[in-house]
Amino acid sequence: METLREIPLIVLGVGGVGRALLEQIVARREYHKRRYGLYLRIVALADSTGAAVVPEGLSDEELKQVVQTKAEGGRIADLPFGYYQNDVKNIVDLEATRETVVVDVTASMDTWEALMLARERKSALVLANKLPLTAPLSQAMALYEYPRLRYETTVGAGLPVIVTTKRLSASGEHIRRIIGVLSGTLGYLMTAVEDGVAFSKAVLKAKELGYTEPDPREDLSGRDVARKALILARTLGWKLEMEDVSVQSLYPEEWDTWPLEDVLAELIALDDDFFSWVDAARARREALRYVAHLEDGRVNVGIQFVPFDSPIGQLRGTDNMVEFHTEYYEPQPLVLAGRGAGVHATAAGVLSDIMEMALASHG
Amino acid sequence: METLREIPLIVLGVGGVGRALLEQIVARREYHKRRYGLYLRIVALADSTGAAVVPEGLSDEELKQVVQTKAEGGRIADLPFGYYQNDVKNIVDLEATRETVVVDVTASMDTWEALMLARERKSALVLANKLPLTAPLSQAMALYEYPRLRYETTVGAGLPVIVTTKRLSASGEHIRRIIGVLSGTLGYLMTAVEDGVAFSKAVLKAKELGYTEPDPREDLSGRDVARKALILARTLGWKLEMEDVSVQSLYPEEWDTWPLEDVLAELIALDDDFFSWVDAARARREALRYVAHLEDGRVNVGIQFVPFDSPIGQLRGTDNMVEFHTEYYEPQPLVLAGRGAGVHATAAGVLSDIMEMALASHG
Repeated sequence: METLREIPLIVLGVGGVGRALLEQIVARREYHKRRYGLYLRIVALADSTGAAVVPEGLSDEELKQVVQTKAEGGRIADLPFGYYQNDVKNIVDLEATRETVVVDVTASMDTWEALMLARERKSALVLANKLPLTAPLSQAMALYEYPRLRYETTVGAGLPVIVTTKRLSASGEHIRRIIGVLSGTLGYLMTAVEDGVAFSKAVLKAKELGYTEPDPREDLSGRDVARKALILARTLGWKLEMEDVSVQSLYPEEWDTWPLEDVLAELIALDDDFFSWVDAARARREALRYVAHLEDGRVNVGIQFVPFDSPIGQLRGTDNMVEFHTEYYEPQPLVLAGRGAGVHATAAGVLSDIMEMALASHG
Repeated sequence: METLREIPLIVLGVGGVGRALLEQIVARREYHKRRYGLYLRIVALADSTGAAVVPEGLSDEELKQVVQTKAEGGRIADLPFGYYQNDVKNIVDLEATRETVVVDVTASMDTWEALMLARERKSALVLANKLPLTAPLSQAMALYEYPRLRYETTVGAGLPVIVTTKRLSASGEHIRRIIGVLSGTLGYLMTAVEDGVAFSKAVLKAKELGYTEPDPREDLSGRDVARKALILARTLGWKLEMEDVSVQSLYPEEWDTWPLEDVLAELIALDDDFFSWVDAARARREALRYVAHLEDGRVNVGIQFVPFDSPIGQLRGTDNMVEFHTEYYEPQPLVLAGRGAGVHATAAGVLSDIMEMALASHG
C-alpha cells in the first residue's frame, strides 16, 4: 500500500482564478492520488476580507461551499469553519512550513509580506499575481532569486512561456529577440481592423463580447502587456524597471482622466489612424500587431508591422503567441501559441506549478 | 565575493551532440558563472571505446582537444589525460555523487547499467538517448519514476515538448489528443509531395541535402517517430510498450532486407500512391502529414489527412510541430513549433536540462 503524501496549500485570493483552482483541485483528487500519490491539503484560504485557517485541511464539501459563497459575492469571513485572521501574513506565520506551497492568485501587492515570510520559511511560492513580480527590482529580486518560485501563468496563462524563456536563458544560447502577442483583446482588435472594421466599432464589439475589461482603457493602454513583458525581461536576467519598458497606448494620454462614456464616444477619432496603418502595412505585405518586443536589453510594447508570412503575421483572433528568435532558432523561430487567458486555463497552469513544486520537494 | 558552485558532470557519448555540448559548456563558462554562480566540471567522458576520468575536471583546453580528436575520428582511449576505464559503469561508480549530473548523449543501450547505478547514487540524469526510455516498461519505469531525470531533447530537440506534456498531465486537465510532426525529414517529404514533386525524387533530394539518415529507410520506416511517440505516451503515464505503437512504414516491409541501392531505385514504385493521396487530401481541403497521434491511450504513427487551416496543416518544410488538444485548449490547440533536430539545438536543450538539475539541487 503506497502512502499518500500530503502537501499543505495556502491559497491567497478566491476570485475567478482562485475559485477555478479550488474546483480543479477537488475534481483531480482521485487522479492526483492514483498517479502521483499526492493529496493537496488546503490549510488556509484568504480573500481581501481576511482568511480562514483550517489546519487539518478543508474538506471537499467545504471547498465547494467556499466556491459557491464567493461566486455569489460572499466573503471568507462569513464562512462557518476554521478560525479567522484579518492579516494574510498571520496565516503564513501559523501554517507555512518547508512542505507548504503558498499560492498567490490575487491581483494585489497586499500579499507581499506574506510572500516574504513564506520565503523565509522556505515554502514554495506559486504566483499568478503579476504585481509582486513587477515591483521595483530592489524588492522583486527577492522573488526572482528564490529557486522555489513558479509564475508560469503570469505570461500567456497556461502556455509554457516562462519555462521556455528560462530554458533558453539557462543554456546561454544567444537570444536575438522575443516577440509576443500577449493580449487576446488586442489580438482580436488587430485582426478586426485588418479585416476592415473601424477601430472604434471593434472596441465596442470586443467590450460587448466581454473580451475587454469593463473599462477598455485597461487593455488599450498596453499596461498589462507591459507588465508581462517586464516579467519576461527579468526572467532573462535583464535588470529593468517598469519605467524602462516603452509602452505605446492606443489612446491619447489625456483620456485617462475622462469619464468612460466620453472615451467610448470619442474612440471614433482614432479610426482613421488605424485605417492608414493597415493600408501602410498591407502595402509592405505586413500585418499590424500589438506586440511585446524584447531585444538587446530593451523592451518595447506597442504596434508593430510584422511580415504576413511570419507566425505572428498569420495569427488571427484572440490567441496569444510568442516567437523566440535565437542562435539555434533561426531563420524560423521557436513558437508557442494558444489561448493566453481565461480562468480555467490559468487555474490549470497554477495547478501545474503547484504539482511541480510538490513533486520536486519529494526528489 | 560570491562562491562558485561546482557541478560535476559525467558525459556518456561524444558524437555530434556530445561534441556540441562540450563546446557550448566551454563557450558559456563566463555566462554561467556570472548569472548563476555555477561551474560545470566535467569529471568523466566516455565513448564506445572507453572512458577518461579526470576527478579534478577537464580543463577547457582539454575539452577542446577532445572535441577535435573525436571530430577527426579519434577515440577517448587515445587522449593523454585522466585515467581510463573500459566500462562506463565504472566511471559512475568512481565519480557519481548526489551532486553529479550524468548525461547520456549516446544512442545505445550500453549505458543502461551506468544509468541505474547513477540513480542509486541519487545523481541527476539527463538523457538525449531515446533507447533507455523506449525499453520494455518493466525496465524503463525505473527511469520514468525517478524524479531527478530530464529528457527534454528526446522529442522535438529543443522544443519544450516534454515539459509541456508533463505540465498538462500534472494538472490533470483532460488531454483529448496530441498530434505531432516529429520528423523534419518526413515533414520535408510531405511538403514536397504536396507541391507536386514525385515521392521518389523528394527522397533522393532529401538524401542529397543530408536531411535523411545515410540509409533513408531509417526515416521512412517511422521507427524514430514511433520512439518519440512512445516517450510522449509514457510521459502521460500511459503504460505502453513499443509493440503497442501502431506504425505505418512508407515502404513495403520486404525492402528491409534489400541492398540500399535497390531500395533507392525502386522508390519510384511508390510515387503513384503519394500522388493519389495528395489529390484525395486536396479534394477534402486537407493536407498530407506524417504524424504521431496520441488519443484515448492509443498511439498511431503514420500518414494522416489534417485540415489545411489547422496549425499542422499550415506547417511546411522541416520544422517540427506539436498540437495539444485539451479540455482548456479547444477549439484551438496549444501549439509548439520550431526546429526539431540538429546537434546545436539538441545540445542546447541538453544543457538546459543540466542547468535545471544543477539549479534545483541548490534549492
